[in-house]
Amino acid sequence: MTSTRRAFRDRVSGAHNAMPAHTTPAHTTPARIMAAHNPLSARLVEEAGFDGAWASGFEISAALGLPDISLVSMAEHLEVVRAMAARTRLPVVADIDTGFGNALNVLHAVRSYEAAGAAAVVIEDKVFPKVTSLVEGGRQDLLRIAEFQGKIEAARHARNDPDFLIIARTEALIAGAGPGAALERGRAYAAAGADLLLVHSKSTTPDEIEGFIAAWDGGIPIVIVPTAYPQMTMARAAASGRVGLVIYGNHAIRAAVAAMQQSFARIMADGDTLGVEGGIAPVGEIFRLQGMDQVARDEAAFLR
Amino acid sequence: MTSTRRAFRDRVSGAHNAMPAHTTPAHTTPARIMAAHNPLSARLVEEAGFDGAWASGFEISAALGLPDISLVSMAEHLEVVRAMAARTRLPVVADIDTGFGNALNVLHAVRSYEAAGAAAVVIEDKVFPKVTSLVEGGRQDLLRIAEFQGKIEAARHARNDPDFLIIARTEALIAGAGPGAALERGRAYAAAGADLLLVHSKSTTPDEIEGFIAAWDGGIPIVIVPTAYPQMTMARAAASGRVGLVIYGNHAIRAAVAAMQQSFARIMADGDTLGVEGGIAPVGEIFRLQGMDQVARDEAAFLR
Amino acid sequence: MTSTRRAFRDRVSGAHNAMPAHTTPAHTTPARIMAAHNPLSARLVEEAGFDGAWASGFEISAALGLPDISLVSMAEHLEVVRAMAARTRLPVVADIDTGFGNALNVLHAVRSYEAAGAAAVVIEDKVFPKVTSLVEGGRQDLLRIAEFQGKIEAARHARNDPDFLIIARTEALIAGAGPGAALERGRAYAAAGADLLLVHSKSTTPDEIEGFIAAWDGGIPIVIVPTAYPQMTMARAAASGRVGLVIYGNHAIRAAVAAMQQSFARIMADGDTLGVEGGIAPVGEIFRLQGMDQVARDEAAFLR
Amino acid sequence: MTSTRRAFRDRVSGAHNAMPAHTTPAHTTPARIMAAHNPLSARLVEEAGFDGAWASGFEISAALGLPDISLVSMAEHLEVVRAMAARTRLPVVADIDTGFGNALNVLHAVRSYEAAGAAAVVIEDKVFPKVTSLVEGGRQDLLRIAEFQGKIEAARHARNDPDFLIIARTEALIAGAGPGAALERGRAYAAAGADLLLVHSKSTTPDEIEGFIAAWDGGIPIVIVPTAYPQMTMARAAASGRVGLVIYGNHAIRAAVAAMQQSFARIMADGDTLGVEGGIAPVGEIFRLQGMDQVARDEAAFLR
Repeated sequence: MTSTRRAFRDRVSGAHNAMPAHTTPAHTTPARIMAAHNPLSARLVEEAGFDGAWASGFEISAALGLPDISLVSMAEHLEVVRAMAARTRLPVVADIDTGFGNALNVLHAVRSYEAAGAAAVVIEDKVFPKVTSLVEGGRQDLLRIAEFQGKIEAARHARNDPDFLIIARTEALIAGAGPGAALERGRAYAAAGADLLLVHSKSTTPDEIEGFIAAWDGGIPIVIVPTAYPQMTMARAAASGRVGLVIYGNHAIRAAVAAMQQSFARIMADGDTLGVEGGIAPVGEIFRLQGMDQVARDEAAFLR
Repeated sequence: MTSTRRAFRDRVSGAHNAMPAHTTPAHTTPARIMAAHNPLSARLVEEAGFDGAWASGFEISAALGLPDISLVSMAEHLEVVRAMAARTRLPVVADIDTGFGNALNVLHAVRSYEAAGAAAVVIEDKVFPKVTSLVEGGRQDLLRIAEFQGKIEAARHARNDPDFLIIARTEALIAGAGPGAALERGRAYAAAGADLLLVHSKSTTPDEIEGFIAAWDGGIPIVIVPTAYPQMTMARAAASGRVGLVIYGNHAIRAAVAAMQQSFARIMADGDTLGVEGGIAPVGEIFRLQGMDQVARDEAAFLR
Repeated sequence: MTSTRRAFRDRVSGAHNAMPAHTTPAHTTPARIMAAHNPLSARLVEEAGFDGAWASGFEISAALGLPDISLVSMAEHLEVVRAMAARTRLPVVADIDTGFGNALNVLHAVRSYEAAGAAAVVIEDKVFPKVTSLVEGGRQDLLRIAEFQGKIEAARHARNDPDFLIIARTEALIAGAGPGAALERGRAYAAAGADLLLVHSKSTTPDEIEGFIAAWDGGIPIVIVPTAYPQMTMARAAASGRVGLVIYGNHAIRAAVAAMQQSFARIMADGDTLGVEGGIAPVGEIFRLQGMDQVARDEAAFLR
Repeated sequence: MTSTRRAFRDRVSGAHNAMPAHTTPAHTTPARIMAAHNPLSARLVEEAGFDGAWASGFEISAALGLPDISLVSMAEHLEVVRAMAARTRLPVVADIDTGFGNALNVLHAVRSYEAAGAAAVVIEDKVFPKVTSLVEGGRQDLLRIAEFQGKIEAARHARNDPDFLIIARTEALIAGAGPGAALERGRAYAAAGADLLLVHSKSTTPDEIEGFIAAWDGGIPIVIVPTAYPQMTMARAAASGRVGLVIYGNHAIRAAVAAMQQSFARIMADGDTLGVEGGIAPVGEIFRLQGMDQVARDEAAFLR
């Protein structure tokens, strides 16, 4: 776990570090992590070659059939993170919203997520309970800067492994506070000890984020979540030299939902499954993902 | 819940009842239920128009990244069933494998699943711990008939709601015991009080199952899981007059897996999400499934 | 469950109703419920003859080795309540603190606790996250009245069973807001639809509470928690005619702790358990509480 | 965690090692661990000075109000172990009964318990599902020796930390198989790689166990659980030179039950709590155990 975390820290810091012009670093592009909502989707994220799994609050709420408004309790989210960490080799970045309360909840949360095997947590500067930042007209009250700095300091204090990353997320742009406020908050969070700064935007083009990145002088790498502005390609993100991590925030559940909807509709219409068999994973592929080959070896080795 | 269970009992018994030739019954075809592995997929099953959700042990194990060999404990499976029942209006049929042990475990399980809001349980006549019946060369030890009858009687004794269905599943065909043994077991399970009989087959054509159905004289409706023999259309199943329920056992997770694999590969290759946006569900569709419109109404009504 | 809730509602309302002078009502005294922190202690509460079990946030936090500052998540507390309700015949009154967030969290909580088999919830008018009200110098920010009324209305809206009780708890006296503020809040909560009003006090004599009760004109029964003022006997509580329920808030865990400390110390000192055997429950008593006699009957009936 | 496990391994091996006659080793007596059923009782075990906490299946079942017959699922027991390990500094020895199934379940269990922070597991050679070994007439079917050796080998294979102890427990004496069979099994389990051997006896005097110990030639330390024969003092256990660990298997729950019964009865009889206040722990003592002083420091440090 420690070595996974160390490698992940190095990876997300890589793009940010100043690089001498003549070198060809192993990683000139940001790390990329993909949303997952259960251990199976995390395993698919691993197989696809992403650098980590995003234990997305949005996806995990959705998988539970619940809106993403702080109804899923820490115990439930933590259990998903623990299972993901146990069943993949990927670093798991845990989306813990506001930290489930105040700075004391953050102390408890960071200890719990680190023990569960996560590699990082993302804590955001909204007031608990939150609503999802993408909903039209959602309330977006921001925490006072000093209070959020206390949460970051609590998170740093609580971690045992110095490679466990504390990622501060500002919703200042989402809340309409403007780029100046976002920069002020970002600097304050970096000063409080955040390892990376996630700046969230619901602008439908990359301009807002690119403006922020260009102005960024806080000295820690930037994390972006280009859900609303998918034109933000890796090349564009890499060009800034300051983006350490790109999070694809909800594409796993969105892919799964569309596919289930289509398959279910077809089966209902046809009265059989023949029409979908070619388009869905064979049963054997699920067996492979479950490790049934290892089961056979274990049975041979240990069942008497 | 009671009314949901009552309606489901009536539904799965309907196709089996002798119908006067001149009537046009509302349901001349078996009920159909689709596998789900979390509340969201259960909600999609509901929206697609299926008669119920199959809380599949196979899918739930797979979602947890585990092989389906009795590693997922009752507490974990039960929690998924409870969440499905809370977030859909569908009857949820719980796949409880062998009942997590002996007849005393069955007493505990049936009480727990009924309290969790399930409409039915399926208990199978294999020895605990089991391996999935579809794996090549999997061990398929069958329980003694009398012992399994004790489990059925325990299940009946434990239920409070007489409409909570006890579905006995025989693996006799899978285990290679032959159609005679399957019939003997089916009759014995019906005699012990099972409400329906699930006969599992891994034959790749419907012949084996159709032979069984033709010979069936046990007086309770049959349940089939035509995963291995998808040529078994609803028309064919209905024609027998004895199939009360068809279970599509694993198509939700198979659809989800294929879609995630394809989307993830494309995003990795492209370096952005533009190429997948058109083929996956929009974010707004996930919001709809989470009930964000109701959240807005609740906020207006109760937040001051 | 419905009949348990109905009887409990009747019971806690009984002492409050005006009684004709010549009648001798079955219950002239308030109902009494005792704290429990797990199903076993709830079973002991039942055997002792209390009217219900108090699923105390304080005791459950303590049992988990955590301070009572909103670290135990709803999922964890709910699981304890569910298990208590499953393994006793008692009404279980769930201490849900502030409702785990705002009014939308309350909607989710009430649905969840009712489904888990609770008979009532107590929601308090403090800001989330809270600290325990008995700690010296604890922060005691009160919610705005209108906001808390929204939570009460949400709770009423969310319940299915009209006999599921919504108990509003005011911390106005604890927060030092004075008796006038407590009365104002109590009336506002009754007007919003609370079924009972819990008034908390950390005064070390009953005077403050008795003053409140004497002035109470809100029309719903009062609930008291005489931890700090144990001189408040049942006779005294009954004399007011307005107390429907007395909660003994933490005596189960306090009794258990002292006994374990003493037994452990003795065993360590003696180097054997002979010295404690006479003072602790025999193993057979634990078997009895676990229902081992029923296990024997079940094995005889269902194991073949 | 690794250092806790290392120290515990050294401790339980110490009494067993041959000691030169002229030395005065730090530990000439076996390690002692006390049963716990939740993190609070584990903390009391720590404060009392025991060498570890015994995450007793019997106590944890009882706390859940359930008989100890394999109804508590691995997920539930594991969660208690994880919480104990998180909230004490003690090594936690997990009582995992038969390993929740066969050797493949053991692989999963050992990985899960090690990740949860346990220091050791005890696996017993009975058939799943089990009944508690102390019940009169309980069924005591023993697993075939070779099959149980496979489970031990699976456990060793699954652990990451070589200091995570695999303790094999034989029920041969309980099952009436006689001392010869017990010795044969013990030797076979040591040969398969068990780190210690727990020999269980329900004899009401230490003779049976002392006979076994005297005859023991399997080369690994012995673990005893002197519930039925409390005359087995530490001095007597130490005298054998072969007992590495003594488990006090159920005294925490027995102490807690008696104290709650007495306090509840008194409160019911008195109509107030005055009579019990002197005999139970003060509220402040519970605060201390919860770490409320640390909460105050954390609030001062991190709340802004």
